[in-house]
Amino acid sequence: MASQSFIEVKPDSHFSIHNLPYGVFKPQPDSSARPGVAIGDYVLDLSEIAKAGLFNGPILKDSDCFLQPNLNKLLALGRPAWKEARATLQKLLSSTEATLRDNANLRQKALVPLGKVEMILPIAIGDYTDFFSSMHHAKNCGTIFRGPQNPITPNWFHLPIAYHGRASSIVISGTDIIRPSGQGHPSGNSPPPFGPSQKLDFELEMAAVVGPGNELGKPIDVNQAADHIFGLVLMNDWSARDIQAWEYVPLGPFLGKSFGTTISPWIVTLDALEPFACDAPKQDPHPLPYLAEKISKNYDISLEVQIKPAGQQDSCVITKSNFKHLYWTLTQQLAHHTINGCNLRPGDILGTGTISGPEPESLGCLLELTWNGQKPLSLNGTTRKFLEDGDEVTFTGFCKGNGYNVGFGTCSGKILPSVL
Amino acid sequence: MASQSFIEVKPDSHFSIHNLPYGVFKPQPDSSARPGVAIGDYVLDLSEIAKAGLFNGPILKDSDCFLQPNLNKLLALGRPAWKEARATLQKLLSSTEATLRDNANLRQKALVPLGKVEMILPIAIGDYTDFFSSMHHAKNCGTIFRGPQNPITPNWFHLPIAYHGRASSIVISGTDIIRPSGQGHPSGNSPPPFGPSQKLDFELEMAAVVGPGNELGKPIDVNQAADHIFGLVLMNDWSARDIQAWEYVPLGPFLGKSFGTTISPWIVTLDALEPFACDAPKQDPHPLPYLAEKISKNYDISLEVQIKPAGQQDSCVITKSNFKHLYWTLTQQLAHHTINGCNLRPGDILGTGTISGPEPESLGCLLELTWNGQKPLSLNGTTRKFLEDGDEVTFTGFCKGNGYNVGFGTCSGKILPSVL
Repeated sequence: MASQSFIEVKPDSHFSIHNLPYGVFKPQPDSSARPGVAIGDYVLDLSEIAKAGLFNGPILKDSDCFLQPNLNKLLALGRPAWKEARATLQKLLSSTEATLRDNANLRQKALVPLGKVEMILPIAIGDYTDFFSSMHHAKNCGTIFRGPQNPITPNWFHLPIAYHGRASSIVISGTDIIRPSGQGHPSGNSPPPFGPSQKLDFELEMAAVVGPGNELGKPIDVNQAADHIFGLVLMNDWSARDIQAWEYVPLGPFLGKSFGTTISPWIVTLDALEPFACDAPKQDPHPLPYLAEKISKNYDISLEVQIKPAGQQDSCVITKSNFKHLYWTLTQQLAHHTINGCNLRPGDILGTGTISGPEPESLGCLLELTWNGQKPLSLNGTTRKFLEDGDEVTFTGFCKGNGYNVGFGTCSGKILPSVL
Repeated sequence: MASQSFIEVKPDSHFSIHNLPYGVFKPQPDSSARPGVAIGDYVLDLSEIAKAGLFNGPILKDSDCFLQPNLNKLLALGRPAWKEARATLQKLLSSTEATLRDNANLRQKALVPLGKVEMILPIAIGDYTDFFSSMHHAKNCGTIFRGPQNPITPNWFHLPIAYHGRASSIVISGTDIIRPSGQGHPSGNSPPPFGPSQKLDFELEMAAVVGPGNELGKPIDVNQAADHIFGLVLMNDWSARDIQAWEYVPLGPFLGKSFGTTISPWIVTLDALEPFACDAPKQDPHPLPYLAEKISKNYDISLEVQIKPAGQQDSCVITKSNFKHLYWTLTQQLAHHTINGCNLRPGDILGTGTISGPEPESLGCLLELTWNGQKPLSLNGTTRKFLEDGDEVTFTGFCKGNGYNVGFGTCSGKILPSVL
């Protein structure tokens, strides 16, 4: 039986006492930003808990990491500090612990209704890397862009392919996304067409938030890599497929991606996800020694994408996928990233790439779902090849426990018309 | 005739009163970092000048931008502030101005011998973008990697191709570079070879340092783009060609680049470079309207690469190139970067890509100079296909004025053996 909090957590809530995801919020529009954890319909203000002296473990008792406007200082402290914080908070919020439960003054200051707060980016993001770790996605994209002969490039099965994305344009869930303009592929001898993207897409991803990281020149061993991952967020790596298709050879995606990337406000820790760990897919060929890990695991996280078409009241579920479909694990991604000595810093983001499953109804982007616009999707009596102005896309992700959930909440964004 | 400073500037110095490049330094190992400008063999400590109340123009008199550990706050202020600072400093350093010249106490505090200071990264770099703007380089690389049929991809002449690089591993000149390890291209059905890179290269680049930048969703017009560029640095975008060749399809370079990128400590402002502006190459086909600028200019900056082979005392000049060989201008790069709404922030870096000229002795990397190792270079009685452990690579760049130089100093790094 799951342990309980004195705070009511409804059965369908993502934010049970087993979760306690971290975010950064402002209780009032003019307040300073501070860290919090979600519990039921509330945010627990960690700056108030710290000021009350309740982080009294050996690592955190003298730390000011909860008095910062982002989580980077907590991330830098590493897993022992994260475990200590989790133990402190689970105890403080439990139904059998009087410290907060029976202190009306502190409850008043420290528990803020979720509906009243403004969530902001929880981390200062130094570098954002995007991987390409779903085999189904790689195969579908390769087929669409390069044809059905050898859709997956030979390197894909030997290393977790990745590229650097744009950190500046990462925004928090709820931020509108302006339709980007750019060049598309020319027909014949005409100049390239220019204008608002006609193939605007979402990409269903998750992203790992990096903890302590490493010094330049010192790779992280794959079997220690989990200690450098604080947790996961939902991520929508919006893509303009027409811009991408024209620009990406030979140096990779650039403007087709950099106009915006949305992350969920709540970071669910690896400790909270641990009960939902599952075996990663068998890898064939066997990875090189630096990628061969003793325990190779994924997490069973149910993912869902809804679109609320412009002008409609109701959303429509268009795909259901799962984090466990990824071929390359988070720890392999991180070890590969540092094998050349590249340094990761606290707050860096490692996107998984689009998480497509094997079935047609588990594909993680419209490029795949509509096969590059050839098979429009039906939704609520209308159809979509790609996103239209006013469409709102919402991702949800959660793990189902025994009588409780460990969830990510939502990651959403609405398309605004081009400004050009 | 050039105006003079009361500080001696030797005829071959890069740091005349016409230059005044900005850097960040520590006068003593335990001092705090502060901004400075180079003049002759000295650094002028701008924190001391600010504390003495000598930045007395309307924009800067109440600013604390010179009391920061990096230049980002100055960059955010924009060109009017930069012009005001330049006018203040040129007056203060001129031979006819008594304020600093005749104040022994202030001179003692504010003028520090260049040889005694530690230079550090002058900016906090949010995002680093690397372009691919030399036609000669694009043609040579395309021929080497993909063969002589259509070595330049069709998109290249329509847009300034770029990708996002790694910001965390940008280091200041003088930092050693550890040889990276990684996977290379397999032969036949063997697994990919793994180990220290056998094709370690330099890339002769320069990089623009972004000033105010733009909000997400608001592109910068190409004719206003120069107002968003503070200045230029020399940049060595070290590359592991074997790692790059195996990993880069389809998402672009990643670990082949992210192990280290070196920049020069001094940022030469666009205002100092203005006398050396020259026409950019004619572009055919004519660029799309958003890239068609009223004035299309490059700068006549002589560039040189020297290698000091491991175990030798003397350096050997191996190539001479010039910034003016770039096909796409800095302002076109910046306008293209933002046309999709991508936001640039103060301190972002836009690399030019390798600056190769048309002649065999003006190629900007060993990949081209040795044609991927097929034609070893002779230097000081030894030969090189690619860089060996202990090799030291030094870039120099300067503009020759009438009786003075506007130079960048040097950008150097030495290769250390792999740690794996």
